Amino acid sequence: MNRSELIQYFRHVRKVSEDICAPLETEDYVVQPVEDVSPPKWHLGHTTWFYEALFLDKYIPDYKPYHPTYSFLFNSYYQSLGDRWERPRRGVLSRPTVEEVYKFRQAVSERMGDLIDNISEKEWPEFHDLVILALNHEQQHQELLLTDIKYILAVNPLQPLYRKSGEKGKPATPAVKTSYVPFEGGMHRIGFQGNGFCYDNELPEHDSYVNHFKLANRLVTNAEYLEFMKEGGYKDFRHWLSDGWDTVQREKWEAPLHWKKLDNKWYEMTLGGWRKAVSDSPVCHVSYFEAEAFASWAGKRLPTEDEWEAAARLSRANQSPGNFFDDGFLHPLAAAATGKSKIFQLLGDVWEWTSSAYLPYPGYRQAAGALGEYNGKFMINQMVLRGGSCATSRDHARISYRNFFQPDKRWQFTGFRLADELK
Amino acid sequence: MNRSELIQYFRHVRKVSEDICAPLETEDYVVQPVEDVSPPKWHLGHTTWFYEALFLDKYIPDYKPYHPTYSFLFNSYYQSLGDRWERPRRGVLSRPTVEEVYKFRQAVSERMGDLIDNISEKEWPEFHDLVILALNHEQQHQELLLTDIKYILAVNPLQPLYRKSGEKGKPATPAVKTSYVPFEGGMHRIGFQGNGFCYDNELPEHDSYVNHFKLANRLVTNAEYLEFMKEGGYKDFRHWLSDGWDTVQREKWEAPLHWKKLDNKWYEMTLGGWRKAVSDSPVCHVSYFEAEAFASWAGKRLPTEDEWEAAARLSRANQSPGNFFDDGFLHPLAAAATGKSKIFQLLGDVWEWTSSAYLPYPGYRQAAGALGEYNGKFMINQMVLRGGSCATSRDHARISYRNFFQPDKRWQFTGFRLADELK
Amino acid sequence: MNRSELIQYFRHVRKVSEDICAPLETEDYVVQPVEDVSPPKWHLGHTTWFYEALFLDKYIPDYKPYHPTYSFLFNSYYQSLGDRWERPRRGVLSRPTVEEVYKFRQAVSERMGDLIDNISEKEWPEFHDLVILALNHEQQHQELLLTDIKYILAVNPLQPLYRKSGEKGKPATPAVKTSYVPFEGGMHRIGFQGNGFCYDNELPEHDSYVNHFKLANRLVTNAEYLEFMKEGGYKDFRHWLSDGWDTVQREKWEAPLHWKKLDNKWYEMTLGGWRKAVSDSPVCHVSYFEAEAFASWAGKRLPTEDEWEAAARLSRANQSPGNFFDDGFLHPLAAAATGKSKIFQLLGDVWEWTSSAYLPYPGYRQAAGALGEYNGKFMINQMVLRGGSCATSRDHARISYRNFFQPDKRWQFTGFRLADELK
Amino acid sequence: MNRSELIQYFRHVRKVSEDICAPLETEDYVVQPVEDVSPPKWHLGHTTWFYEALFLDKYIPDYKPYHPTYSFLFNSYYQSLGDRWERPRRGVLSRPTVEEVYKFRQAVSERMGDLIDNISEKEWPEFHDLVILALNHEQQHQELLLTDIKYILAVNPLQPLYRKSGEKGKPATPAVKTSYVPFEGGMHRIGFQGNGFCYDNELPEHDSYVNHFKLANRLVTNAEYLEFMKEGGYKDFRHWLSDGWDTVQREKWEAPLHWKKLDNKWYEMTLGGWRKAVSDSPVCHVSYFEAEAFASWAGKRLPTEDEWEAAARLSRANQSPGNFFDDGFLHPLAAAATGKSKIFQLLGDVWEWTSSAYLPYPGYRQAAGALGEYNGKFMINQMVLRGGSCATSRDHARISYRNFFQPDKRWQFTGFRLADELK
Repeated sequence: MNRSELIQYFRHVRKVSEDICAPLETEDYVVQPVEDVSPPKWHLGHTTWFYEALFLDKYIPDYKPYHPTYSFLFNSYYQSLGDRWERPRRGVLSRPTVEEVYKFRQAVSERMGDLIDNISEKEWPEFHDLVILALNHEQQHQELLLTDIKYILAVNPLQPLYRKSGEKGKPATPAVKTSYVPFEGGMHRIGFQGNGFCYDNELPEHDSYVNHFKLANRLVTNAEYLEFMKEGGYKDFRHWLSDGWDTVQREKWEAPLHWKKLDNKWYEMTLGGWRKAVSDSPVCHVSYFEAEAFASWAGKRLPTEDEWEAAARLSRANQSPGNFFDDGFLHPLAAAATGKSKIFQLLGDVWEWTSSAYLPYPGYRQAAGALGEYNGKFMINQMVLRGGSCATSRDHARISYRNFFQPDKRWQFTGFRLADELK
Repeated sequence: MNRSELIQYFRHVRKVSEDICAPLETEDYVVQPVEDVSPPKWHLGHTTWFYEALFLDKYIPDYKPYHPTYSFLFNSYYQSLGDRWERPRRGVLSRPTVEEVYKFRQAVSERMGDLIDNISEKEWPEFHDLVILALNHEQQHQELLLTDIKYILAVNPLQPLYRKSGEKGKPATPAVKTSYVPFEGGMHRIGFQGNGFCYDNELPEHDSYVNHFKLANRLVTNAEYLEFMKEGGYKDFRHWLSDGWDTVQREKWEAPLHWKKLDNKWYEMTLGGWRKAVSDSPVCHVSYFEAEAFASWAGKRLPTEDEWEAAARLSRANQSPGNFFDDGFLHPLAAAATGKSKIFQLLGDVWEWTSSAYLPYPGYRQAAGALGEYNGKFMINQMVLRGGSCATSRDHARISYRNFFQPDKRWQFTGFRLADELK
Repeated sequence: MNRSELIQYFRHVRKVSEDICAPLETEDYVVQPVEDVSPPKWHLGHTTWFYEALFLDKYIPDYKPYHPTYSFLFNSYYQSLGDRWERPRRGVLSRPTVEEVYKFRQAVSERMGDLIDNISEKEWPEFHDLVILALNHEQQHQELLLTDIKYILAVNPLQPLYRKSGEKGKPATPAVKTSYVPFEGGMHRIGFQGNGFCYDNELPEHDSYVNHFKLANRLVTNAEYLEFMKEGGYKDFRHWLSDGWDTVQREKWEAPLHWKKLDNKWYEMTLGGWRKAVSDSPVCHVSYFEAEAFASWAGKRLPTEDEWEAAARLSRANQSPGNFFDDGFLHPLAAAATGKSKIFQLLGDVWEWTSSAYLPYPGYRQAAGALGEYNGKFMINQMVLRGGSCATSRDHARISYRNFFQPDKRWQFTGFRLADELK
Repeated sequence: MNRSELIQYFRHVRKVSEDICAPLETEDYVVQPVEDVSPPKWHLGHTTWFYEALFLDKYIPDYKPYHPTYSFLFNSYYQSLGDRWERPRRGVLSRPTVEEVYKFRQAVSERMGDLIDNISEKEWPEFHDLVILALNHEQQHQELLLTDIKYILAVNPLQPLYRKSGEKGKPATPAVKTSYVPFEGGMHRIGFQGNGFCYDNELPEHDSYVNHFKLANRLVTNAEYLEFMKEGGYKDFRHWLSDGWDTVQREKWEAPLHWKKLDNKWYEMTLGGWRKAVSDSPVCHVSYFEAEAFASWAGKRLPTEDEWEAAARLSRANQSPGNFFDDGFLHPLAAAATGKSKIFQLLGDVWEWTSSAYLPYPGYRQAAGALGEYNGKFMINQMVLRGGSCATSRDHARISYRNFFQPDKRWQFTGFRLADELK
């Protein structure tokens, strides 16, 4: 991008974060119902501090921080960037107020605008790429904002609404029938292969050998998942990984997160409110443990991330994308047969759990300094998710994107698709 | 009181709660930094629900609760009055908003006003006494509001102020010199002996035999407590009860709560901000464990509650009271020699830890129903405090008043005075 | 005692500890099923270390400890006597072996025998009194040995026996009918008043004013307690202290410790094995919370320790004692009407929970040094028990004896007797 | 094997378990210092119960269990085989005694001997394979016995010895110099490829594409690891995975397990006692976190399991094996240059952490029933280790063997070897 494009894009991304928070009451910005969920005002502050720490501090001589304590409050986990307020206690801080955080945002955005305008030609290339990274970082927090807000509202017995409608705007469509699409095995090129931005964990591009396999043409639906539940899926240890079964017992799981039973019917919470679980919608807010147990119960398996990526490339997934943040539904939609595509929703709707552990690609080396802490240090005990969700910005998603969470997490828009051997 | 007096008093008490919260930002009403500390909006809601549960529900036929979920949210610990939201998670609720809570207050206050006006003559006497209890209940929460707000602000690295000044308004006075006032032993009448309101735990009035004893003429000061600290008080197990020593180790205590060391000087937080620990001010925010350890180090002891009460009666403590909420300092003041009194601050300034466990008086029987849950069920593992504090309303304090907390608690305005044998 | 009497008594007490352990398998000496319960070999070692630390180290010039690490392993909680192995991990130590502990016992006993023989006349008086204290200390651990062994066997699904019979040897006697014995109020002399040994917590002797009261002539029986259980005692919060109710919920209590239900009948474990809960036997292994809840349900209360002591003195409790360790039953027996007594079992059978917190007597001062840590530092959050139990040596019990445990503890032989006002 | 060979092998394996325990005191069999470490008598019982549950119960009509409660006590984690005593509380069971467990072993071994003799020809093939599996199972527990015994002795302040000597018997040899052996990338055949026994997790045999890579010719040594420690390896977050760094902080790690510092020298515990950390010995008792941090500090990486397996096949690792249980040293030895080999210790000495998560091979399907619980349900949040250790029986190790532990575990004989890209 050139300078004016970058400024425009910068302003756009900054605005999206604030648009997401627009429906909130001041009080909603403050609370942290569980450790995973950060207060929205923390996200707004953290994504602002990120520019201060990586740009203003670095490119503006004698830059004086907007507030001497904000770095301490809004640093997430960057050991290189100083001490931090402990994560599980983000929700005990009433100050800075929401208004102060917005002022902080504005001040930093203005300085960033100046910097984009005025940075020297020599520094521009590195600076440009770093800004793109920082905007991608903010986009990741936009998705977290949506899922954290959802959690904050869901936990409240008053059942507050985020907004009146949501996916309801779209006429209900029946999901396409399940079928399995065969893919040829062999050597596949894996990892980011374009010119634009990608995270370091998508590199280096490399060869990977994949067996023949079949991949479901769409995501597993609520109706299919309800079948698993009805057949006692949450009560039969045989379907579960040992740690998964322990989690089911300890947490007393009997349905996806944000589901509840009323009068013997299951309801799911959307950002537009509670509604009866829509049969043809992709099941959402399930953990890896649940996805894996379902697959085991169904006699199938989850795809590896290499299978998923190979299939996505071969089927030109980005030509028939699913539902993104930009579409405004904020909930996964039923996969409608569209165009000539044989396989649906690889991009959008829900992040898809794969059976691959989040580990470095062959030849990966962690960057030095703070950016090295971005991805590499989390490469243990997490599973890879692919494809982006209804809360992901369309321009943030790509086929090579590797998202990752611990196998018990389920507050993100996470679902799954089945795979099988091709004999 | 007659009806119009009661209405006036009701409005006064209700207003005090709101006045206390006036300096807060919306965000300050929401958080719960530790389990003991409730969000201010919870206090405002709880003290309102209390009238709904005990009056509106009972005296208004077919009364429909202001909101069907508020009883669940604002019931504290009354098993008789239905299920409750769990206490340690009060701080995860963003809704109802602060504004909604104030509307709830107003609506209930109006209905209460009507009720006070219109309740039948027959019901009046019981109703009147119950309203007085409920107002005392709200006054207790006013003190908690102040200490919880103090905690919420103190925990915040931004060091927000509750208000600009506080005790500073008063010219610094040197504390009177310590001396010990002798009291004759013998039979003393203990418990509430007047006609007005008291809690059930102050009854029945009864005889108690007390040995000869001496009681310090004033509270232990910061200067005296600093001496204990300097001599390694927090580092020497010999002064401490076993459970107290464990607490010191586990919590890494090395000073009272809300103290911090800067450049080798100790500072204490007041509701008017941080300041150097004032030598002649009573030490405040200490636990029973600390009070007891200090006494042990000093070769003295804490008084029993009977000794304290006998001394307070004999010395007419209410004729030379200390500093109450009404005085507006919101921090204990140095005991200045005033009038003919020989013993100071028995009432006001800080709650005084006694060496008495909180147990029923001889002949005490717990009331039936919800009111029986008010005091009696807490009569275990707590110690009695006497005298009221700078955060207690003057008309809420009295000589027979028994406050009680676990021996490790120190977020209230708690201090102590020494006693000794009179040989 | 003179020297030869003391040696004989010393040998007797030492032997009792070993006799108690005689029925054990080596493995039984090692385990620690919960923090409260110490491995029997630890008790044997600790009671031996006690003589090393207080006598051999002190009275024998250049005494070289039997083993350099044993003080670290066998010190319980004496901060004055050096570092300690942490209590909750006593059960992870396989060494020293049981045989090595017995050798340690023997070696120390021999040195103690020599010392009793040879200590100078000048040192004798202080030495003598300290030995008596140490023997009382060992007797306390004998009771703990019995209750810890019982717990270790009870927790084991193989239901091992301590010994084949127990109380069964005694013909079953019906309990006397309950009645309440009236006692005059007034000034009573409380505390140890004799010449022999007592603990420091029984001093100083002092006056206490007690109201008129009534005391049940016997302990509450299993039959009476079963009535409480049948009427939903464990399911109705109204009977319970708040902390007690929390404990009931958390621990899922529905009967005394060491009880279980089979075919709708309740069984209790004795050191002679499991048997149907004997109706007329005193209920045993109940906590203060349970005793207090029963009293509340029954419309009565527990006695204060002063009431208990006054009643015991007035009724000459030691002339009609209950069942002690020396009687060999190791389980409380039904109170049979014997002699001219009007009130039974004040001494022996079970420790009786009183409604008094464990606090210092007026004028009590903690001793300096290690002995000061014996009792005084535990004077918080515990309740007083009186009278001794079927696991207490007869010569260890006395009317002024103050035992103490936290209100949730119930692995000791603890029961209770009701009291009431005398109007 | 034929029947007599199988009986002989069965007896051999059974005897090894008992030989391992021969040096123990009875008390050593009982304790469980941490959840991971089971009491040795539990291992002896569990490996015996395994034959009862899988053979005697199944092949002997109307088989009556040796003891009705032993299945409850000795089942480890087989949900299919009934309820279990909870794992963290194995160390609170004094019974069955060690002697009773040995009797149980003998009785079951005899019945197994009869069964091997008498099972029908028709059942023989399946039976034979299952017995081989069960013997491999017992061999796995033999390794756990050694590491659990080591832990039990190490935790004890008395520093008991397992045996007087150990690796000391072998003349100290300098380790070969480090060098990196290059390996060609390309398609490699991975997984078990022989005719004998393997676990289901080594199947199916499959192709895998591996890049060119280099592998260290020997394990990382104590001297090299000490260098990492000296350079502040445990104090610099930059080397560590985020979860690893949290573990270092929480557990206060500053050296491998079973190391301690005396007079500024590091000592390591062996089963023959404590000794100064031998420079040329492979570092041992390190977690994945530590191995990964060391590699990061060294600018290298750990090998993937496919790289390791490819290298082991290509270099004929089993022709120059390291030190196994059968060699009797029970501690890793320095890699001495032997024969023509270019790469050492791939088999034996220590289990080698790989950078591969423990996940199913392509096409893996979990078996039905209890055997399905053997491996498959643990395929999450664990890392693969390869090669066997000085505590592994030689006939239990093989190139395709996949061991697995959580990344924070380090009580096994675990070490590592470095790898690097081959550019």
